[in-house]
Amino acid sequence: MDYQSVLEEIYEEIQPLLGEGKVADYIPALAQIDPKQFGMSITCNDGTTYNIGLTKTKFSIQSISKVYGFTLALRTYQKELYTRVWREPSGDPFNSLVQLEYEAGIPRNPFINAGAIVVSDALYSRYQDQTLHELLSFVKDSADTQDITIDKTVATSEMEHGFRNMSLANLMKSFGNFNNEVTPVLEAYFGQCSIAMNTQELSRSMLYLANNGTDPITHKTFINPAQAKRINAVMLTCGHYDASGDFAFRVGLPGKSGVGGGIIAVVPGKMSIAVFSPALNEQGNSLVGTNALELFTTKTGLSIF
Amino acid sequence: MDYQSVLEEIYEEIQPLLGEGKVADYIPALAQIDPKQFGMSITCNDGTTYNIGLTKTKFSIQSISKVYGFTLALRTYQKELYTRVWREPSGDPFNSLVQLEYEAGIPRNPFINAGAIVVSDALYSRYQDQTLHELLSFVKDSADTQDITIDKTVATSEMEHGFRNMSLANLMKSFGNFNNEVTPVLEAYFGQCSIAMNTQELSRSMLYLANNGTDPITHKTFINPAQAKRINAVMLTCGHYDASGDFAFRVGLPGKSGVGGGIIAVVPGKMSIAVFSPALNEQGNSLVGTNALELFTTKTGLSIF
Amino acid sequence: MDYQSVLEEIYEEIQPLLGEGKVADYIPALAQIDPKQFGMSITCNDGTTYNIGLTKTKFSIQSISKVYGFTLALRTYQKELYTRVWREPSGDPFNSLVQLEYEAGIPRNPFINAGAIVVSDALYSRYQDQTLHELLSFVKDSADTQDITIDKTVATSEMEHGFRNMSLANLMKSFGNFNNEVTPVLEAYFGQCSIAMNTQELSRSMLYLANNGTDPITHKTFINPAQAKRINAVMLTCGHYDASGDFAFRVGLPGKSGVGGGIIAVVPGKMSIAVFSPALNEQGNSLVGTNALELFTTKTGLSIF
Amino acid sequence: MDYQSVLEEIYEEIQPLLGEGKVADYIPALAQIDPKQFGMSITCNDGTTYNIGLTKTKFSIQSISKVYGFTLALRTYQKELYTRVWREPSGDPFNSLVQLEYEAGIPRNPFINAGAIVVSDALYSRYQDQTLHELLSFVKDSADTQDITIDKTVATSEMEHGFRNMSLANLMKSFGNFNNEVTPVLEAYFGQCSIAMNTQELSRSMLYLANNGTDPITHKTFINPAQAKRINAVMLTCGHYDASGDFAFRVGLPGKSGVGGGIIAVVPGKMSIAVFSPALNEQGNSLVGTNALELFTTKTGLSIF
Repeated sequence: MDYQSVLEEIYEEIQPLLGEGKVADYIPALAQIDPKQFGMSITCNDGTTYNIGLTKTKFSIQSISKVYGFTLALRTYQKELYTRVWREPSGDPFNSLVQLEYEAGIPRNPFINAGAIVVSDALYSRYQDQTLHELLSFVKDSADTQDITIDKTVATSEMEHGFRNMSLANLMKSFGNFNNEVTPVLEAYFGQCSIAMNTQELSRSMLYLANNGTDPITHKTFINPAQAKRINAVMLTCGHYDASGDFAFRVGLPGKSGVGGGIIAVVPGKMSIAVFSPALNEQGNSLVGTNALELFTTKTGLSIF
Repeated sequence: MDYQSVLEEIYEEIQPLLGEGKVADYIPALAQIDPKQFGMSITCNDGTTYNIGLTKTKFSIQSISKVYGFTLALRTYQKELYTRVWREPSGDPFNSLVQLEYEAGIPRNPFINAGAIVVSDALYSRYQDQTLHELLSFVKDSADTQDITIDKTVATSEMEHGFRNMSLANLMKSFGNFNNEVTPVLEAYFGQCSIAMNTQELSRSMLYLANNGTDPITHKTFINPAQAKRINAVMLTCGHYDASGDFAFRVGLPGKSGVGGGIIAVVPGKMSIAVFSPALNEQGNSLVGTNALELFTTKTGLSIF
Repeated sequence: MDYQSVLEEIYEEIQPLLGEGKVADYIPALAQIDPKQFGMSITCNDGTTYNIGLTKTKFSIQSISKVYGFTLALRTYQKELYTRVWREPSGDPFNSLVQLEYEAGIPRNPFINAGAIVVSDALYSRYQDQTLHELLSFVKDSADTQDITIDKTVATSEMEHGFRNMSLANLMKSFGNFNNEVTPVLEAYFGQCSIAMNTQELSRSMLYLANNGTDPITHKTFINPAQAKRINAVMLTCGHYDASGDFAFRVGLPGKSGVGGGIIAVVPGKMSIAVFSPALNEQGNSLVGTNALELFTTKTGLSIF
Repeated sequence: MDYQSVLEEIYEEIQPLLGEGKVADYIPALAQIDPKQFGMSITCNDGTTYNIGLTKTKFSIQSISKVYGFTLALRTYQKELYTRVWREPSGDPFNSLVQLEYEAGIPRNPFINAGAIVVSDALYSRYQDQTLHELLSFVKDSADTQDITIDKTVATSEMEHGFRNMSLANLMKSFGNFNNEVTPVLEAYFGQCSIAMNTQELSRSMLYLANNGTDPITHKTFINPAQAKRINAVMLTCGHYDASGDFAFRVGLPGKSGVGGGIIAVVPGKMSIAVFSPALNEQGNSLVGTNALELFTTKTGLSIF
């Protein structure tokens, strides 16, 4: 199929939507971004790539980083990880403390904030002050490039406004599901959220999830096939906070979004797709990005359903 | 692939599990069922079938009927239906009133009780006292057999013990999301739950979901391709109450379970699978059935992820 | 103390507030009431009375009737009643199902709707179709007059719009905390809510609570002293839904309000006070009535604190 | 009335209960206390005192200190304080985050942990690193003795196990209802909880609440009469976490308990009572202490109802 033409059609069709939605504004560094940007990249398992729009513009990957964290923790702890974080949809706004309280400090899944923080705590137990370094190394490996850095302005700003995440971490600690000091773990967590990447790098880096855990180009094996399938399953059911069902319904692909405006999606066996557009819809996911992906599966029939 | 051999392997491997779990006991008719029964049927899009165990034993399909109800309502109301029921995972035990209260009477999805009841109300608005008859006709059509009936003992018993569903219906009525008298709608709802089928009929009847809305054998079109994909998506994210994430994670297929011990699963483009074993796990889904399906996708690699 | 002068001062001071707030509008019969009405009556234990404003205008007592129901049930069942309804503040909007769900069908106290409905169910178990008649007889006895009736237009209208209460009753029935058919119990419940009284009758009827359970004028004993104190305690902590703390804080007396605009308050050992003004504040209690009572305790120092 | 005889009767009657319940064990310093201790002191407005049992044994006053904090903050901020903390019962276990989340960081009342922490934050804004010193000075003033200290072992231990309170503080900070650094405010808060007093000192110190805000012996005015009444009202509706209704019901006096086993109660216009017995009931209040106070009001008729 001529994916480049598909991207061009999508590019035309989403133009009227640019300007809708609003960018994340809880920290100054994110609030200042031009909301009308758009870029979309495809990397296929055979190495071919397709790009349209601002695909070299770096942006804050934010919660997309939770996929990397989960991958690394699953590789480190295997099934043991599931004693500390479940894999059920949360059915609640993304950073609510309510379910965490009712469920005794065990987060519903690794893609809500509480779950990602517990993943960071697990990684910190293993890697200590090298946690963020290890995570970043993994991202560079999976993206097959050294040119990926952390936006320190964003990281510092996140830490300064991170009271709710501080609250989540302390609540889990009170339930015994947090094993290290809160501050350094959150520094690692906010560090990973502040990784800056472009859509080309993002789509390249997620290719292992489209190929059973092994990068089809470098042939590096990051995780085993069962783990890869399961990360995809969790992305499908939990990847978009309280709009996960809607994303599965409209797009029909495993995916993960970030409040920086990025979304990645995986077509198992075929390709990885990344899209970037900073203005968010009411559920906190890229408004144009979601639409672009819905157009993509409608035009190509590549929904997993 | 030799699916019959796969079924035979599964049959062997699940033997040690027969006896675990417990049957639903909220009504006498279900409580008396032999918990150690097991049957599993596959119907492929090309019409070939594979069976093992008690595949001709009729059982109460219970919540599996919600798939038929949702299909019929989607065909009748199209997108308008989504003003009355969402498609997000519930993240809560299956018959909780809490989310319904916080979300002003709009159920999270059509596969929790509240959502299925609002679907029944929508169907009742169209079909009045013919609602159950229409639903049953659709089931017969999709299963390509006239030999399907309602177990009236079960239906009566459900109605006599249905106070929680009565509560849900009245709560939605208080929010304006229920348009008919409560009693006849619940009679239709409990009637559909009390349909008795075997795994051969069930797997046959769901084939339209594996083939874009059209029965691949009779060529009858029940719904359009987009609707079929979306029903599959909702089954994946919401089909197993608060164990939906776990089912997606372990089995990796769209599916729907019932407390009668049945589960159906769909492999898009390929086949429909039905399994029956009455003893339930803690989440209220067939314990052996879930394991059998997990074995199936592990052995065949037919997970959608 | 010259209570008549106090009432006259209050009457002057509340004039600017008449017109604020809004009347209950969930049923037509209540929505049509002139919101600017005001009346206030005091009956002292020695039989002296003080009145100002519309103290002969009958209005729907609504939830004030829960005090009579609780009294009658406590007299009938004594401590056994507390296995079915607690005496803790609810801390939630008045007819929420959430706490009832989390607390397995046991209402927090007899002055929220769920609690009053379970009280009606308990009374129905004893008095069957004479339940409403018994309740009304008790009201007449306590008010020492036969001139009290039920407004059937209101009662019918309540029943027709009572889906939420129907939901509550069915939920409690699903938990086993409801022993009769739902419909006749709710008819008795809505009947008692629809009793029409004026402030003179109301203040007269509650005198037993200011005198340890015995009417100080007729010397009829309705309940024992410990029960009377405890009804007062429950009124203080739970008598005004989610504004109970505020009422205790501002007024400092045990009291109970109704959405018809009435409030009764008890000064233990001294008197009973009734006030009527139909416009409600945001918490659903009479706006002017609450202010009038706050003025009363400020001017007289009769707060229990 | 011969209160000494009443105390002696109570002392006899509670003997069989000593040994029931269990001491707080979340920090070692509290877990080691002998559970069978008992002491009870009355201080009347005219200065007469009555004592029985271990009335000179110092113990950790814990949440009773919230009364001092609230008094000091009310004196400092008057009504402005109520923009940051309400005065409604919480209807939830005492340190739950759920309501705080739903109510946007405004605690329900100053006697749950979240509310007391926000009070500490308000005091810290005024007194900075002298906050704990000011609080302790107020306690000494009200108890009319300099012999009151902070148990630093307890304070340190509280801080080391205070993750849930850390979580509460950060959550309120995320909602903008916390104005200082979290750590020093919590140090002040845990410091006040760790004040050690005996029942003689406690009953003496609360006398201002029995006398309209002015100590009847030293004639020092701490707060005005309206404020005193309102503190009593909040104690009655909110003083015992989720057992406040039960305490009002059984004892019928404004009171405040602490997990150290102390309870204070106020008879407006007459006296202040303190009781100490470390074993707690299921709601976290002194089991024997609650019973002793219930016996006291039953025997004396001094309930406010």
